[in-house]
Amino acid sequence: MSTQIKSTNITWHEGSVTRAQREKLLNQKGVTVWMTGLSASGKSTIAVIAEQMLLHQNKHAYRLDGDNIRHGLNKNLGFTAEDRAENIRRIGEVARLFTDAGVIAITSFISPYKKDREAVRASMKPGEFIEVYVNVTVEGAEKRDPKGLYKKARAALAAGKGMGFTGIDDPYEAPEKPEITIETESTSAEEAAKQIVAYLDKGGYLKA
Amino acid sequence: MSTQIKSTNITWHEGSVTRAQREKLLNQKGVTVWMTGLSASGKSTIAVIAEQMLLHQNKHAYRLDGDNIRHGLNKNLGFTAEDRAENIRRIGEVARLFTDAGVIAITSFISPYKKDREAVRASMKPGEFIEVYVNVTVEGAEKRDPKGLYKKARAALAAGKGMGFTGIDDPYEAPEKPEITIETESTSAEEAAKQIVAYLDKGGYLKA
Repeated sequence: MSTQIKSTNITWHEGSVTRAQREKLLNQKGVTVWMTGLSASGKSTIAVIAEQMLLHQNKHAYRLDGDNIRHGLNKNLGFTAEDRAENIRRIGEVARLFTDAGVIAITSFISPYKKDREAVRASMKPGEFIEVYVNVTVEGAEKRDPKGLYKKARAALAAGKGMGFTGIDDPYEAPEKPEITIETESTSAEEAAKQIVAYLDKGGYLKA
Repeated sequence: MSTQIKSTNITWHEGSVTRAQREKLLNQKGVTVWMTGLSASGKSTIAVIAEQMLLHQNKHAYRLDGDNIRHGLNKNLGFTAEDRAENIRRIGEVARLFTDAGVIAITSFISPYKKDREAVRASMKPGEFIEVYVNVTVEGAEKRDPKGLYKKARAALAAGKGMGFTGIDDPYEAPEKPEITIETESTSAEEAAKQIVAYLDKGGYLKA
């Protein structure tokens, strides 16, 4: 950190660009918005709209979801208890890097176990991890079931071949003190996204 | 993607924010600058200065290096051949996510094996992976040895306890066609960083 390399008009220091400098550049604060909830609770739809709303305010958000994680970083993980924990751990670590980069990272995974989510929270500084509980009953989620996953899980269970599907034959552990709770059955996706953006705005995350 | 959610004045689509939109916001293109070279070749010093120069141009760069990866995402990896490959694979996947986010990701790891680097390159689109070969002879690196790592490796080897240290008792496979080659022994860190920034500028990465 002490060496200085002089050019004709600027002095470059051997110190990293700081997080504060990145945040100033982006005029926002790095943060992780962690969506958790049952399959078909509406997590991804809400995340996508929140991302659009943030872009509309010139804020740099990035979504981490099954599409860009499962076939990439976590393609070598299966569905054992150990692999599920490692799945969430890695997502948490990537979210932490984006947060450090000054980006608003929005993760959208069922992340059913309290222990795994709490480990991610503990890896970040206070205020960096915003847990968004997308609350829906199993019945409500099952009624929607846009991809027919609950139907498949019920059929597998009836055939004696449990899939370990969250809400059917694997538990979902609801957050106890989430920063934001969205009541899916009485809130539109747009209202839910507004709720998230308003939280960020009020919390000072949308300015440096 | 077809549902539209109307608000009073804006129509939110259920489509993700695109990479092009993020790049427009940042006025730059997402890209991975992959530094490779022996320990003590100067990779990190050059990366830090390049990052500063980019910030000075209001460009959003983020460095991935041992400091933020080894004790986080890759803390459960050791030094077996398999773990080393997985180490680089995960770093490549994270760089790919940052690139997709529109950020200039600068990675700074020895990454000695051609096969591992080529796998990262193959995971990205043409032009997204810029390999920067920081070329130094083992003798040159050993002369610098700021952390005494070569000394340790030589001592271990002499004691019959090889560490698998790149350049001493593990191979470094130089890139065949790197986008940028830096001749450390005849180039200052500042000149090297300028070489990288000039490449990005000329390649159109510093505008959307």
